[in-house]
Amino acid sequence: MPLNLPPRVLITEVGTRDGLQREPWVPTERKVALIDDLAAAGVPRIEAVSFAHPKHVPQMADAAEVMQRLARRPGTVYSVLVPNAVGARRAVEIRPDEIVFVTSATEAFNQANVRRSIAESLADFEPVVAVAEAAGATPCGAVAVSFGCPYSGSVPPEQVLAVVEALLARGAREIGVADTIGVANPRQVYDLTARLLDRWPEVPLFLHFHDTRGLGLANVLAAMQAGATRFDASIAGVGGCPFAPGATGNICTEDLVNMLHQMDVETGIDLDALLAAARLMRATLDHDVPGRLLHLPRPTA
Amino acid sequence: MPLNLPPRVLITEVGTRDGLQREPWVPTERKVALIDDLAAAGVPRIEAVSFAHPKHVPQMADAAEVMQRLARRPGTVYSVLVPNAVGARRAVEIRPDEIVFVTSATEAFNQANVRRSIAESLADFEPVVAVAEAAGATPCGAVAVSFGCPYSGSVPPEQVLAVVEALLARGAREIGVADTIGVANPRQVYDLTARLLDRWPEVPLFLHFHDTRGLGLANVLAAMQAGATRFDASIAGVGGCPFAPGATGNICTEDLVNMLHQMDVETGIDLDALLAAARLMRATLDHDVPGRLLHLPRPTA
Repeated sequence: MPLNLPPRVLITEVGTRDGLQREPWVPTERKVALIDDLAAAGVPRIEAVSFAHPKHVPQMADAAEVMQRLARRPGTVYSVLVPNAVGARRAVEIRPDEIVFVTSATEAFNQANVRRSIAESLADFEPVVAVAEAAGATPCGAVAVSFGCPYSGSVPPEQVLAVVEALLARGAREIGVADTIGVANPRQVYDLTARLLDRWPEVPLFLHFHDTRGLGLANVLAAMQAGATRFDASIAGVGGCPFAPGATGNICTEDLVNMLHQMDVETGIDLDALLAAARLMRATLDHDVPGRLLHLPRPTA
Repeated sequence: MPLNLPPRVLITEVGTRDGLQREPWVPTERKVALIDDLAAAGVPRIEAVSFAHPKHVPQMADAAEVMQRLARRPGTVYSVLVPNAVGARRAVEIRPDEIVFVTSATEAFNQANVRRSIAESLADFEPVVAVAEAAGATPCGAVAVSFGCPYSGSVPPEQVLAVVEALLARGAREIGVADTIGVANPRQVYDLTARLLDRWPEVPLFLHFHDTRGLGLANVLAAMQAGATRFDASIAGVGGCPFAPGATGNICTEDLVNMLHQMDVETGIDLDALLAAARLMRATLDHDVPGRLLHLPRPTA
């Protein structure tokens, strides 16, 4: 049995959202340039900003302005994160294609993250779905700490499946499953992915890995073995802690694209243009970034 | 079909050889301490030093003294690298368990590396085998640039198989296949590994990956899918260029062991003791190291 590889993978860029929300303030103009460069490179789906309350995530206070100033590229899917219906109502003013709402696989993490029970978060999701659907945006439900929780430890797959089922019952049209703290291993990824795709083969499934322990791309490979074809990634691998460079970012978009292209898996992305965007991201930050391709000597020819 | 994972993997530590030969001089006493700590942590096979000529690899000028001062742990396999029969004769004086000899999959790399044709290198291997066998050391033949060459580009698998066949014909009892420049991808690794194991199922096959483009652990996962169970790795991920931290080292031993243990694949290694050795390696160098586990906050409990 050869490796099970899909002919094509859909990559969602999350660097300007999941990455920059962990960094010092980045000027609006630079955020716009980064997102426009990523879209121009052919990234098919971009989780551009979060409409979290500026008190909680000041890095995203200019979310609406960023979205308004983008050169919205035809065919590119622009998604935004919202924490609740208030955020969703702010978000739909800028006409996102998709709206992502996150709850957790564990009560402990959900309490720590949003000070709500999972049931309360699921109740919060209902008006988010209503606002999204009324505005013609696709509602996506995502599940944090699906592979391990900093408070509760290991997470039984049944717990993830139960939250996914609840999100779908409340109107999610797409599902995200996240290894928020970067503890997933390939065997676990394979098993959970297979169970999710077996149960909901028609629901688009987005997998979100962090490279905290260096297993991010191995987890992508395992997920593809189980049939997954949609992955989040972050340009230059941003999202890490400035005090531990390379330790906690998302998997790196350009490194992922390189792996896929080397295996003849299509992404629709121009790797050279993507690397230019990665260099812009690196120049935006005041510390080094984890991306490996960025550290290779540049060809001189 | 679930992921194909072996119950147990054999890890060869190459950090004090492949890693330290790219670093400034490390005192003999520290090399001995590193190797002894690795053996005590349960690493079953250690490629400890190289008997390259000190003019070419001055970092290994004390190879014999290092080996003489080791606390040779019963059950641990100590292997050494030799470039030719002269090196092999120096090596057998310290009674290594195994002797590794490297040739290349491409003429261009072999010329650049040892200024010899592949045929000349294969001829050099014959007296190495004779010296090794006379001393009771197992001769291992390794093939550099098996997945890509900095001079010739892509490397057809047939070329690797031909060199492996020639090494076996000249007396190699074990085979190493190396991604010397870190360009291998999981599909390619799976395919070449499957061909090698299909053709020589009884010959121990050691795979050697560099993490230059971040694909090292994904390549291990792919190789295990194809049936491989023996991997080289380097403590703390050392072996990178000091001017591009994290860019070109071997796959990191402790990160690999963590991945395997998380998947219930046994290694016989005590991860906590291994991490202590990794911290000693980090403290030995004047720059940061690529290993991810080393960058996690240490538990305070």
